[in-house]
Amino acid sequence: MENMEVNEIFDIAIVGCGPAGLSAAINGANRKKKVAIFGTEFCSPKLHRAPSVENYLGLPNLTGEEMRKRFLGHLDVMKLSINKNKITGVYPEEDGFALQAKDKFYKTRTVVLATGVSTVKPIDKEVEYLGRGVSYCATCDGPLYKGKKVIVLAYNREGLEEANYLAELAAEVVLVPVLSEKDAQGVTLEQKIKVVKGKPKGIIGEMWATGVALEDQNLSADGIFIIRESVLPDQLVPGLEISNQGIKVDRSGATNIPGVFAAGDCTGAPYQLSKAAGEGQVAALAAVKYLDELKNKAREQLATV
Amino acid sequence: MENMEVNEIFDIAIVGCGPAGLSAAINGANRKKKVAIFGTEFCSPKLHRAPSVENYLGLPNLTGEEMRKRFLGHLDVMKLSINKNKITGVYPEEDGFALQAKDKFYKTRTVVLATGVSTVKPIDKEVEYLGRGVSYCATCDGPLYKGKKVIVLAYNREGLEEANYLAELAAEVVLVPVLSEKDAQGVTLEQKIKVVKGKPKGIIGEMWATGVALEDQNLSADGIFIIRESVLPDQLVPGLEISNQGIKVDRSGATNIPGVFAAGDCTGAPYQLSKAAGEGQVAALAAVKYLDELKNKAREQLATV
Repeated sequence: MENMEVNEIFDIAIVGCGPAGLSAAINGANRKKKVAIFGTEFCSPKLHRAPSVENYLGLPNLTGEEMRKRFLGHLDVMKLSINKNKITGVYPEEDGFALQAKDKFYKTRTVVLATGVSTVKPIDKEVEYLGRGVSYCATCDGPLYKGKKVIVLAYNREGLEEANYLAELAAEVVLVPVLSEKDAQGVTLEQKIKVVKGKPKGIIGEMWATGVALEDQNLSADGIFIIRESVLPDQLVPGLEISNQGIKVDRSGATNIPGVFAAGDCTGAPYQLSKAAGEGQVAALAAVKYLDELKNKAREQLATV
Repeated sequence: MENMEVNEIFDIAIVGCGPAGLSAAINGANRKKKVAIFGTEFCSPKLHRAPSVENYLGLPNLTGEEMRKRFLGHLDVMKLSINKNKITGVYPEEDGFALQAKDKFYKTRTVVLATGVSTVKPIDKEVEYLGRGVSYCATCDGPLYKGKKVIVLAYNREGLEEANYLAELAAEVVLVPVLSEKDAQGVTLEQKIKVVKGKPKGIIGEMWATGVALEDQNLSADGIFIIRESVLPDQLVPGLEISNQGIKVDRSGATNIPGVFAAGDCTGAPYQLSKAAGEGQVAALAAVKYLDELKNKAREQLATV
């Protein structure tokens, strides 16, 4: 929280840089809104791997990689760039939302989620204990565990680095590496870190999380950090309604949280480019409408003072 | 009905050749379905008139006309062409739907409506009396009025031609021209036709339509033909649910009628290219899914025989 910047407020913050996120960005910018696009990864690996795309109207016979370059080229034309900071949480505030990144907060009036299809499955009770002993961000919540014992479930290389960071603060760090040896190569772990191998099954606790259940043993700790490549939408935005299709949206892309919209694969099938670009446009224009209504309300309130 | 062709059955018949219709067509064809695209007009005049389009992801800085050519070019690549016959009615049949064109019927298993925004307002009680003395198609229903009296409300040049055609069959033809003199230029009306000037207000009738109310007088007849450039979706497809936004659809583009899908401006705002192309894709893929389910059901039924 100490790192929070309060100067800059975006109109529309877009989480995800696939076709839905990029379409939302160019549409928001086209309507003269202050847009931020957050994307941690190469945008998008899925498109990059597509051998050919035949069904995006107006651009026949391109490879996925050619399409990807064209999409990013459109962003250049609009003078937009992608912020590589990973967003780990979206929290409501008085005037909009705070977006939690690794070592920084961003402020925005509206949010468009374009996080793609997530293949991540949370472990048992993970979501239940989020914010009560379970955290996705060592930099943000590490200081809470000064002199205490923490467990790090590391699903990627970043998780090992976070464990090293936590070793500077916590009294004890137990690391459960859940990644391939190849991905772990080259990271030297702090001596203080105790490595325990095993498959995480769930979180243990009562009011507060007290440990992690592995397949063959239970580990106890004061805090548990879970570090994965992507964060599930309902973990990213507490209270977000999800169906078995994906994020629940109406035809304007509005979610159950006013000011939060969603577009693309994260709202469900079909997982297709035109659908994603179309929904990105619709969500951005719905956000624009929402912003205009906010402004009108503010004016009315001023008028009655 | 005599002209009905029963040989050819389309998998997906698309009514409308704007971005939504074209996107539906390339997506249906891409999934190896037998696709028909019906479009009476230049596809699309609205796109043709757009000075520039900035917000269709991947194609920045094109004029509407350049975009239009690219879209039609994509159709060429897929070896698809547009059928210029105007569809005036969509009626359920045992195995799908019959599409009524000027002098022909087409058969299809599913329909995607992509008719654009309609600015047409029906006159009072027009929809109520449709099929009960009110018709949109002289070639189809003209023979019913052999030796009788008909009124033609002609909103375009085609209406004048239809009046001429009806003059061959009916005993009396009253023509109410509701078009500019420029549009009427060059059409010679049959001598039998009586021209009455005035603004049509509504249909008069009880169980069956018996005439037309103009602003200053009432006209009586056995049948009334209303000829306009476009047909409203709920007049095109009897029983189709419409909201004040447009055709009611769920997130897959499905309407209230199984096998009928809708996409683009006809489903409501925002009236934008990406939204239309995305919805065209979603509707076509939903139609493909529906076709696959039909096939599975048929197989199951065969298996139980």
